Amino acid sequence: MSLLEKIIGPTLASQEEEEQKVGPLAGIPMLGLDALSSAAYGPEAALTLLLPLGALGLAFIGPITLIILGLLTILYLSYRQTIAAYPTGGGSYTVAKENLGTRPGLLAAASLLLDYILNVAVGIAAGVGALVSAVPALHGHILALCLLILALLTLVNLRGIKEAGVVFILPTYLFVGTLALTLLIGLVRAALSGGHPHPLEAPPAVPVATAGVSLWLLMRAFANGCTAMTGVEAISNGISAFAKPAVPNAQRTLTWIVVILGLLLGGIAYLCRAYGIAATDPDGATYQSVLSMLVAAVAGRGVFYYLTLAAVLAVLSLSANTSFAGFPRLCRLLAQDNFLPYAFANRGRRLVYTLGIAILAVLSGLLLVAFGGITDRLIPLFAIGAFGAFTLSQAGMVMHWRTHPARSPQEKAKNRVSLIINAVGAVATGVALAVVLATKFREGAWITLLLIPGLIVLFERTKGHYAHVAEQTRRHEPLDLSSLKPPVVVVPLRQWSTITEKALRFGLQLSPDVLAVHISATEDEADHLRQRWAGYVEEPARRAGVPPPRLIVIASPFRRLFHPLFDIIKTLEGEYPDRMIAVIIPELVGSHWYDYLLHNQRATALKAALLLNGDQRVVVVNVPWYLSGRKA
Amino acid sequence: MSLLEKIIGPTLASQEEEEQKVGPLAGIPMLGLDALSSAAYGPEAALTLLLPLGALGLAFIGPITLIILGLLTILYLSYRQTIAAYPTGGGSYTVAKENLGTRPGLLAAASLLLDYILNVAVGIAAGVGALVSAVPALHGHILALCLLILALLTLVNLRGIKEAGVVFILPTYLFVGTLALTLLIGLVRAALSGGHPHPLEAPPAVPVATAGVSLWLLMRAFANGCTAMTGVEAISNGISAFAKPAVPNAQRTLTWIVVILGLLLGGIAYLCRAYGIAATDPDGATYQSVLSMLVAAVAGRGVFYYLTLAAVLAVLSLSANTSFAGFPRLCRLLAQDNFLPYAFANRGRRLVYTLGIAILAVLSGLLLVAFGGITDRLIPLFAIGAFGAFTLSQAGMVMHWRTHPARSPQEKAKNRVSLIINAVGAVATGVALAVVLATKFREGAWITLLLIPGLIVLFERTKGHYAHVAEQTRRHEPLDLSSLKPPVVVVPLRQWSTITEKALRFGLQLSPDVLAVHISATEDEADHLRQRWAGYVEEPARRAGVPPPRLIVIASPFRRLFHPLFDIIKTLEGEYPDRMIAVIIPELVGSHWYDYLLHNQRATALKAALLLNGDQRVVVVNVPWYLSGRKA
Repeated sequence: MSLLEKIIGPTLASQEEEEQKVGPLAGIPMLGLDALSSAAYGPEAALTLLLPLGALGLAFIGPITLIILGLLTILYLSYRQTIAAYPTGGGSYTVAKENLGTRPGLLAAASLLLDYILNVAVGIAAGVGALVSAVPALHGHILALCLLILALLTLVNLRGIKEAGVVFILPTYLFVGTLALTLLIGLVRAALSGGHPHPLEAPPAVPVATAGVSLWLLMRAFANGCTAMTGVEAISNGISAFAKPAVPNAQRTLTWIVVILGLLLGGIAYLCRAYGIAATDPDGATYQSVLSMLVAAVAGRGVFYYLTLAAVLAVLSLSANTSFAGFPRLCRLLAQDNFLPYAFANRGRRLVYTLGIAILAVLSGLLLVAFGGITDRLIPLFAIGAFGAFTLSQAGMVMHWRTHPARSPQEKAKNRVSLIINAVGAVATGVALAVVLATKFREGAWITLLLIPGLIVLFERTKGHYAHVAEQTRRHEPLDLSSLKPPVVVVPLRQWSTITEKALRFGLQLSPDVLAVHISATEDEADHLRQRWAGYVEEPARRAGVPPPRLIVIASPFRRLFHPLFDIIKTLEGEYPDRMIAVIIPELVGSHWYDYLLHNQRATALKAALLLNGDQRVVVVNVPWYLSGRKA
Repeated sequence: MSLLEKIIGPTLASQEEEEQKVGPLAGIPMLGLDALSSAAYGPEAALTLLLPLGALGLAFIGPITLIILGLLTILYLSYRQTIAAYPTGGGSYTVAKENLGTRPGLLAAASLLLDYILNVAVGIAAGVGALVSAVPALHGHILALCLLILALLTLVNLRGIKEAGVVFILPTYLFVGTLALTLLIGLVRAALSGGHPHPLEAPPAVPVATAGVSLWLLMRAFANGCTAMTGVEAISNGISAFAKPAVPNAQRTLTWIVVILGLLLGGIAYLCRAYGIAATDPDGATYQSVLSMLVAAVAGRGVFYYLTLAAVLAVLSLSANTSFAGFPRLCRLLAQDNFLPYAFANRGRRLVYTLGIAILAVLSGLLLVAFGGITDRLIPLFAIGAFGAFTLSQAGMVMHWRTHPARSPQEKAKNRVSLIINAVGAVATGVALAVVLATKFREGAWITLLLIPGLIVLFERTKGHYAHVAEQTRRHEPLDLSSLKPPVVVVPLRQWSTITEKALRFGLQLSPDVLAVHISATEDEADHLRQRWAGYVEEPARRAGVPPPRLIVIASPFRRLFHPLFDIIKTLEGEYPDRMIAVIIPELVGSHWYDYLLHNQRATALKAALLLNGDQRVVVVNVPWYLSGRKA
């Protein structure tokens, strides 16, 4: 196991878990990266759709951003309440399930799972978009770069929460710092120049208009811009990662995230208009991200430009980390309710949910390959999951306040205010969801709409299966103690060795009826073993007064090893109708990870075949043999 | 297992193997695709290097091709002899090992393994190169297309040899047919026009010269052109796939392959010069493959053009199939000699070597990602492995004929002729290898030169490990029959169920000392089980006169399940110093593939933990419980 441990770190004991908790300073990078980094693709996604309007399009980015900021404020107030009401972690799944019922809960869960997967793909793709903006020579390697970053991220997350948090602190604050500085310089320049600053590096000319303004186009731009709000729910899902007192810590973290995000969105929108920066064709070879053009216009293409773009690349790529924290957590909640296989509830090495992380990495990798690593192609699938979960969560909170007990009139009034806030949130996000769905249906939203019911069916089937098994294995009768005869023991062997001897000896401890089976490729080999058997087994057994184990030798051409053994087992079952058949399989255990590659493949295959081909009366016994270099 | 079976086909029984054998007609696509398809990238690889010479470069493609054709003829004669001398499969590894010794054999094996991996990557990359030549709109998706084709190929190969062969017959003969027709039309046109045919679709202008002729440049072009010969050895490695009589069938197949390949290479070289077709920049956005320009010049960009290019795409992609047949075969040979883990020698489902196929797919996928799916970047790594294996194989054949017994003077003379042919082959391929190594060292050949010794070390270490284990487990003493006491049985349980009852009952059949261990999260749960235990187990046991199994309940916070169990096992080992400890773990077995995802994760983890943390005295007993819907 040493190689594996070097890569993913030593196994953590359970008591170390408390040390892994974080405060707001580390909480912002860990759970807020998704939300903050949205500033890097949300405005750009809206601007890309305004491209056909030419220069006029820039006039609309202001109003659209204002609507988005209003929605963000409502969302903030709603989620603050959710955090307080569900201090052990109030993800959309939990809130919707407890207040609206199982189906809405599963709907929220399915939406959120898809949102998490898309967030990984979009974050990485947008990060690589920033990279090729700064280094155009890399334009031909977009997909390879995306997959490389995904692999690195997966590794970091398999190492565990805390260290992952540390990796993310520096880039996050560098991102916020450099962007804030860019916006500040830009705003000062704009103010000094009466709203028309001169760019240090001129952005590409705004293309001429190819279409007129229409409400439909503006709604589509708004829908694209809504991706800037994805990730705000992550905190409410991850309260358990905060140090005590968890609720105020989580609320403070949320406040900071929303304030920073709002400032970034507003500043970017204002400066894009002031500097005349429109989006560029995302599929073209001259693609440049909006942030790249903005920073170059404000500060020139110097050291600061490259530092800022490096921070954007880092933060966008790492924004996927919000999903790596949230996806396995949600899978675990579903598994605890029997909606996903139990395996998702098992904590892996280093206290993270290995299986969830692995599945998230594979699915988002497939998305990246399918869409070539281009952000703009992924955007239509995005935001639906997020806004579906927002709406269900807020609606659930409305029900929560309706049934919440109030011990005083003050408390009752407070509940009432809370209810109104969440109701406004539910309606606002619901309307936004409707706009997103309507405007993006043909561009890819239908994929999301197909997958969500599919996931819900999967959840319900899984739960049904577990219920069925529990029904089958229920027992209300006492232990059956009739005819407790020892089993008939079968020991497959290849040669006389210490391993064989140990297996045989254990067989004799279990039962007086032991049968050794040797599948022989050549007659010589068989004769050799028969001779040894007589001297090494039969004679000493007779001397000790123990019934000697029988040796059965079967000639078999190459490879046919399992079937003769199964035939013998079948015969034994007929001979001994009231006995169990125990097959002893020796297993080599070594101290190195490569021992697992070098040994036991055949033992593992035989065990699997016995389980598949056997019946209730066949039992497999693994006798380990430890290679030296390990404890004896 | 039903989903898995639908995808990779039902498991084949061993006796069906003979039916999977092929004749020359199916043998050419199956084992010759690699060799034939080389015609599509070999000439182009040489032309790309002649690019700096401008129009003058085209004058040199003729002489270079002639040298390559000479080398190909020598190679053909040599391998014909190898097939006859090693009718059970005379790959370079076998021939070099038997005649030159183990180390040269391993050198040949390592070279060939790398060659197989590169062949997959180059074949797929060149196929996608043909595709983007025909459909320039796909230029941005080169890597994604490469990975998609790799995935499809892997799937086809996991389904088994014969069906794979059928998939390949049509494209291969379409490729040979369309290219032959193209060459024929081109040659007739050239003859009618006195050697200066007018292209129907003019190829891009030949760029102006940027460098003068040098021997070094010509040698590099020759080295690149040598990739046209890769794959010729595949037949000698795969004789076992031919129907009887295998040797003449294999030889006839080889003859056909070499004749077709030679005609293609010669025709392409002549027509490139006649039509004035030079290579285009492989990294550029206007890249077009040489074959694409040639077919367009000869026949125009009509239906025939697209049909031909489709065949080129199919055959180049599928040429990787030679590797998918050869790589697992070679791994198996190495595993049978203990140089690779035994697992490589296990035939998987459908009689193919699953593990080898999987590893080949992963490694060549990594190569594609690392080199962005561009053929030209992969070429420098290629050919070294192939020519290393060629040289070692021919040198081995020289030794073979030197020691070959001759019963008559005629036979002696015949052996002498054979020896000379193979000696010429060894020297010729050796010189070519030296040229390739010298000219491509800096461009990537050094990677190959580092990997080959690494692989050899791996092979030798593996063999050493197996020898070490055999030494450790050797035994020359008879069976130890002292103190055959029954084991102490431990049964971990969660609740009273039919599964628990079965495990407990089996425990009582093994030993009078049975201990049930329950890890309890809550006190309620513990009390509930204690009550049931008294009524369902202790009372009936006392009535039956059987020593009642003890129940141990341990309170444990969430997740800590294994450690309390290990503590108990440790205590028992102290209490019973001369007894084995048998831990009974029930396992659910279902009839559907998803049952494996839904159950037993904890049982599997517990078994693994017991083996890792246990010692020679701890034994694991798997008691299966079959879900209904399966045989009882």
